[in-house]
Amino acid sequence: MSRIRLHVDHPLAQGQSLPLTEAQAHYLFGVMRLGPGDDILVFNGREGEFLARVTRAAKRGGELELAEKTRPLQIPPDVWLLFAPIKKARTDFIVEKATELGAARICPVQTDFTNAERIRQDRLQAHAVEAAEQCGGTFVPEVEELRPLSRWLSGWDAGRRILWADESLVGAAAALSGAEPGPWAILIGPEGGFSPAERDRLRALPFVLPVSLGPRILRADTAAVAALTLWQAALGDWG
Amino acid sequence: MSRIRLHVDHPLAQGQSLPLTEAQAHYLFGVMRLGPGDDILVFNGREGEFLARVTRAAKRGGELELAEKTRPLQIPPDVWLLFAPIKKARTDFIVEKATELGAARICPVQTDFTNAERIRQDRLQAHAVEAAEQCGGTFVPEVEELRPLSRWLSGWDAGRRILWADESLVGAAAALSGAEPGPWAILIGPEGGFSPAERDRLRALPFVLPVSLGPRILRADTAAVAALTLWQAALGDWG
Repeated sequence: MSRIRLHVDHPLAQGQSLPLTEAQAHYLFGVMRLGPGDDILVFNGREGEFLARVTRAAKRGGELELAEKTRPLQIPPDVWLLFAPIKKARTDFIVEKATELGAARICPVQTDFTNAERIRQDRLQAHAVEAAEQCGGTFVPEVEELRPLSRWLSGWDAGRRILWADESLVGAAAALSGAEPGPWAILIGPEGGFSPAERDRLRALPFVLPVSLGPRILRADTAAVAALTLWQAALGDWG
Repeated sequence: MSRIRLHVDHPLAQGQSLPLTEAQAHYLFGVMRLGPGDDILVFNGREGEFLARVTRAAKRGGELELAEKTRPLQIPPDVWLLFAPIKKARTDFIVEKATELGAARICPVQTDFTNAERIRQDRLQAHAVEAAEQCGGTFVPEVEELRPLSRWLSGWDAGRRILWADESLVGAAAALSGAEPGPWAILIGPEGGFSPAERDRLRALPFVLPVSLGPRILRADTAAVAALTLWQAALGDWG
């Protein structure tokens, strides 16, 4: 059995004690049936992962004592995922997968053909935390608020290239094999694709690399996973 | 708006008429509100895709008349997905994604650490059909019945190599870049990984290529999508 991993907000250092919130106590002692003397792993997204022992277990709280650091903070490569939110379950899924695949920042964007008017940023951020707990990551990507694509592009730093999953003739792997590492973003459209105006604007931007993801039409969630995979394999930390 | 695509079991040829089942009639006329004169696309996984016009619409049936062939049958590259079924929603998801990503055959395998005792093959096959309808594919991969991994391996044709997602030191993309095309399979384990006995057996097989999918632990469904993506980009039809 692998140890329970818990994300906490508290600063972490060996020998310190860490108070548990009511929700954490409920999960550890109510759901997972742990008690004093049991060990778990904790991380806060900033200082790596620590072994922690339960020193007090109550119904509405408790305390851990931090032992040694078990893993350093591993910041993923500098790739953001920009995606147009779709149905709830698939949006949750994209956030989970992007965290597992090591996206550094998750940016829901509103496009001309996006149906979503708003997202629950707090719920999506909680999904990213859960995914990090599960996948052994020590980093949790920030989930941004929903913003229009046009606003993202207006303030865009031209030093960050954009891998744009489009109906391009160039395969993503081929395009990435000749590309330089550095800051990148991946842009995935909604199920209906991008509007003509959006496509014109994206095509005109020198830092945008349009690529194809194969001959079949991929759902937005599949496209997000596929593009992140190819990016990590070519320029990221999958070497 | 893109046209409705419907998978049918009937043989297809221009000029022929095609009777609709009660479920198809309910979907087209009840749910999608089509009527006589409306056009849809049909495919049967064997003869490509045809334009079809509704000629009769009733509550429990109806008829289409087949017009011209709109796409030839496109058989995906010869790659199978072997995976250990997990929770229902994630198993459904793997079947959907494998179809979109162009797996030729989907094989649920029982491993030492698989919880699933049985699967609903008919339900999973229906998911593959739905995914093919959605992704514009003209081919539907066969979903096999659940069989033990040991049984798959005993009768294995050594000409079909297996890309095995394992804790290998070799990245999948690097391993595939030097590999030959031809018949392949991708093997994804359950959340708990493979047992020591399974790993010994797999390591000893000359046609098995163990690879890593990056430094984070991927869920089985993420691993299936990532491995299929890298395979298609390196040896499949994503060129």
